[in-house]
Amino acid sequence: MNVNYVIGVDYGSDSVRALLVEAETGNEIAVSVFEYPRWKKGLYCNPSVNQFRQHPLDYIEGFEFVVSDILKSIPNKLDKVRAISIDTTGSTPVAVNKTGTPLALLPEFSENPNAMFILWKDHTAIKEAEEINQFCRTWGGVDYTKYSGGIYSSEWFWAKILHIVREDKLVERAAYSWVEHCDWLPALLTANKNPNGIKRSRCAAGHKALWHKEWNGFPSSVFLSKLDGHLKLIKNSLPFETITADKPVGNLSEEWANRLGLSQSVVIGSGAFDAHIGAVGGEIKPYYLSKVIGTSTCDMLIVPIEDKQNVLVRGICGQVDSSIVPGMEGMEAGQSAFGDIYAWFKNLIMWPVKNILSESELIDTETREKLINEISTKVIIKLTEEAEKVPVSESGIVALDWMNGRRTPDANQLLKGAISGLTLGSDAPRLFRALVEATAFGSKAIVDRFLSEGIRIDGVIALGGIAKKSPFVMQILADVLNMPIQVVKSEQTCALGAAMYAAVVAGIYSNINEAQVNMGQGFDRSYYPIPENVEKYKSLYQQYSMLGNFITKNTH
Amino acid sequence: MNVNYVIGVDYGSDSVRALLVEAETGNEIAVSVFEYPRWKKGLYCNPSVNQFRQHPLDYIEGFEFVVSDILKSIPNKLDKVRAISIDTTGSTPVAVNKTGTPLALLPEFSENPNAMFILWKDHTAIKEAEEINQFCRTWGGVDYTKYSGGIYSSEWFWAKILHIVREDKLVERAAYSWVEHCDWLPALLTANKNPNGIKRSRCAAGHKALWHKEWNGFPSSVFLSKLDGHLKLIKNSLPFETITADKPVGNLSEEWANRLGLSQSVVIGSGAFDAHIGAVGGEIKPYYLSKVIGTSTCDMLIVPIEDKQNVLVRGICGQVDSSIVPGMEGMEAGQSAFGDIYAWFKNLIMWPVKNILSESELIDTETREKLINEISTKVIIKLTEEAEKVPVSESGIVALDWMNGRRTPDANQLLKGAISGLTLGSDAPRLFRALVEATAFGSKAIVDRFLSEGIRIDGVIALGGIAKKSPFVMQILADVLNMPIQVVKSEQTCALGAAMYAAVVAGIYSNINEAQVNMGQGFDRSYYPIPENVEKYKSLYQQYSMLGNFITKNTH
Repeated sequence: MNVNYVIGVDYGSDSVRALLVEAETGNEIAVSVFEYPRWKKGLYCNPSVNQFRQHPLDYIEGFEFVVSDILKSIPNKLDKVRAISIDTTGSTPVAVNKTGTPLALLPEFSENPNAMFILWKDHTAIKEAEEINQFCRTWGGVDYTKYSGGIYSSEWFWAKILHIVREDKLVERAAYSWVEHCDWLPALLTANKNPNGIKRSRCAAGHKALWHKEWNGFPSSVFLSKLDGHLKLIKNSLPFETITADKPVGNLSEEWANRLGLSQSVVIGSGAFDAHIGAVGGEIKPYYLSKVIGTSTCDMLIVPIEDKQNVLVRGICGQVDSSIVPGMEGMEAGQSAFGDIYAWFKNLIMWPVKNILSESELIDTETREKLINEISTKVIIKLTEEAEKVPVSESGIVALDWMNGRRTPDANQLLKGAISGLTLGSDAPRLFRALVEATAFGSKAIVDRFLSEGIRIDGVIALGGIAKKSPFVMQILADVLNMPIQVVKSEQTCALGAAMYAAVVAGIYSNINEAQVNMGQGFDRSYYPIPENVEKYKSLYQQYSMLGNFITKNTH
Repeated sequence: MNVNYVIGVDYGSDSVRALLVEAETGNEIAVSVFEYPRWKKGLYCNPSVNQFRQHPLDYIEGFEFVVSDILKSIPNKLDKVRAISIDTTGSTPVAVNKTGTPLALLPEFSENPNAMFILWKDHTAIKEAEEINQFCRTWGGVDYTKYSGGIYSSEWFWAKILHIVREDKLVERAAYSWVEHCDWLPALLTANKNPNGIKRSRCAAGHKALWHKEWNGFPSSVFLSKLDGHLKLIKNSLPFETITADKPVGNLSEEWANRLGLSQSVVIGSGAFDAHIGAVGGEIKPYYLSKVIGTSTCDMLIVPIEDKQNVLVRGICGQVDSSIVPGMEGMEAGQSAFGDIYAWFKNLIMWPVKNILSESELIDTETREKLINEISTKVIIKLTEEAEKVPVSESGIVALDWMNGRRTPDANQLLKGAISGLTLGSDAPRLFRALVEATAFGSKAIVDRFLSEGIRIDGVIALGGIAKKSPFVMQILADVLNMPIQVVKSEQTCALGAAMYAAVVAGIYSNINEAQVNMGQGFDRSYYPIPENVEKYKSLYQQYSMLGNFITKNTH
């Protein structure tokens, strides 16, 4: 039997993971994970001002380690490896010089955080994002934020560049272009030394760098130069066109082929962002909302472009032609906090343990630490057990899930959370249940927005930690949405999605849908709405909406 | 020097306390406390349905014990004891037979909870209170709730009687009249065997039994008989007139004089409710709000009747001519929860300690209990320490103090608490601070109601556990009210107030004001508003009001 191997490489926030997959069956042959060593030490970061930077060497060393590691499982079949595709966090750009080299790889910048990758969650560019937003609304030309819900975020490409070049003149002078992590790595592997020739991912450019066909690519030079002369220079280094993840960017370079023991015939796919590639690995299909549920959520929907008829969905994060799956409009929404709200509540009620038990002299330090650990580990489990026993709408508590602002619908970072319906009998399990319901209501608000904008949703595909771990949360979500939810089986949908795209760029499948059908791992659990609960949640959701309207009206 | 002694006896919910006072100076000579033995065992009560009953023997045994006990300190001066006045909880009525004997003192009723005192906090008459409220609004005659904010409570006289006689036909048949605890005890001490002759306290009758001069006393027989024939019979046993606490009801009976070793010349004062007598002991004066701050609050205001000009203050609990101080309109308001809200929050965040630490096998049972105890004892102290460091309005959290409904202004038991302005950074001290501010805002809503109804308030006199214990809470209260607050020094203002009234009924002073001036203990601490905080709280109070309006509008 003819076997072909493909490799998916998934760069997360803390580590990189490689997955070796049999392209014909989707069988996962080997996996390897590498934690970024400099990052783990906390180098180049300053959490108190939300400065998060990653050194390119962390990425390079990681790549070599994980790919070499998985290849050990097929020592005699290295010639059967056909392609490698990668996904990364984003927007995570870096300044490069004229040879496409990240500045931090040059001796003079090797310890300068501004010359490194600016990680997605770095928020040092808040002021610059606000400046871009103001300018978009007032400069008189097209409002470039129209496809991202009217908001440009401090987590994105242009805001980050603007911040760094204003802060660091050395980096400004040395930067010939800026490149997303997901675009730089394929360029590195294919030995592309010309920044102007680096392919820019549709996903990254469309969702985070204001690229759109409507204005022929990136924002106009006039617009960018009025923000800062440097931005115009950067634009000159960018192509008009972007590339989708089903296209190759080239073949493995001689150097990397030697380092890995692979052939130069190995195809390197165009990179893309982790959430989007993960949705593909989780078998996203048209009109099914693919929801990655962790600390926050990333909600993705794909709609055949011929169906879409130029619908612009008001108040979602972004919509980009072919960003998730080629030929489909990729739409992205999300909740700024989901699991983070449960973690907040846990932290709140752990206060006596962390602040009083921790100082008690009744027990020794070691026992204290063990005890705190034991309690901390069990809190959510035990709260869940108790909250499950509370009948729907018994407590009368209704909460609002905006403790970290609202991402969608209608981004508004000023909004805050609220809890109503409190009595002296409102205990921790009842509050916890109300907070879980609040996160489900937040999901419903997103679904409702798609529906009211004429985009149907047939069901939900759930991925991420909470989707796998909490049947309690998932059942409430199904009841509130009044939609079936399928939970994806694979534990590494990002790496698997990248492997699927690798199989496409290798020509093993003619499109990503074929790859999904053959390589997908399927679902391991489904949740169906319980009709009795659905009815009760309709009325609670009305209360949620009214509370939300009140809070929104009174937030300035 | 000629010394006269007076005795104040204060019946609380769990115990009775007697205070022996030198009438000329107010010096406290001796105090004695007796816990009700049957009550302490939980007899005749069923907390799960809020049934709380007290046996008359608990009161009688308690009286004999505490009075005998304090008299031991003046063995040779018993002839100098001039008068005894008492205060009790209320409304705490009991069914009596034709000789004025509480039914539970008869052999056939000795174990029947319905034949005992129905303690103030007994809520078994919720249905009957609702019936009275409905009937008041619809029967076509005068609305008897007009002086109690439009609401008759399940804690009050007629509702309790209606409940018992419908539930217990034996009690109904045996009951000749119903008497408040504060009226029965003076009758007992003066050997009054005729229920028709029992003096009815203005305070009890006016605030809890719908007595008012406007309708010539208690509600009309027509009204009462339409509710239940029994109520009309009870009314026939009641006098037209009521008596104020500065009037004697008679002299100590021979039997009781012998039991206590006192002379029959000892005068027995008319009884009254503890909160009102406590306000007198705490030196209430016209236009100063006397606020008893504990789990809930009782807010009392006295206004010279000549100033009042028949003002009816909308939405307060009650207003009765001479109920607190003769010659003054006594007005009563209150917050349904104050310290209870802090206790609720403490309980909420103690959940992991009570539910997980309590089951940990890392430590033995004894250490576990000690540890839980230690944490429980320190939580509010440590929360207070941390909350004090949070600058006013820094957290953005605004809470509503209606976790136990709203007593005043505008009683509404359906209302519930709420918390807005939550972020992922809202930690326990910040929430605690917001809850303290919420209770202060609730106080301001009451003050504002008096002001908007044309009753001025010049300052606040604070009594009760929280007033004494928490400078943090009291400073916030002063800042929010923008009023100075004086905290009463005496730890037993109720017994002291009763002793003051005893000095008046003994003729040592010609009125209660004179007694207050000579016997008062003064204040031990004052809080003054901090102008900078006052301004900030004005804006937070607006947010509190808006949140309150929203919640009220959406509560049905």
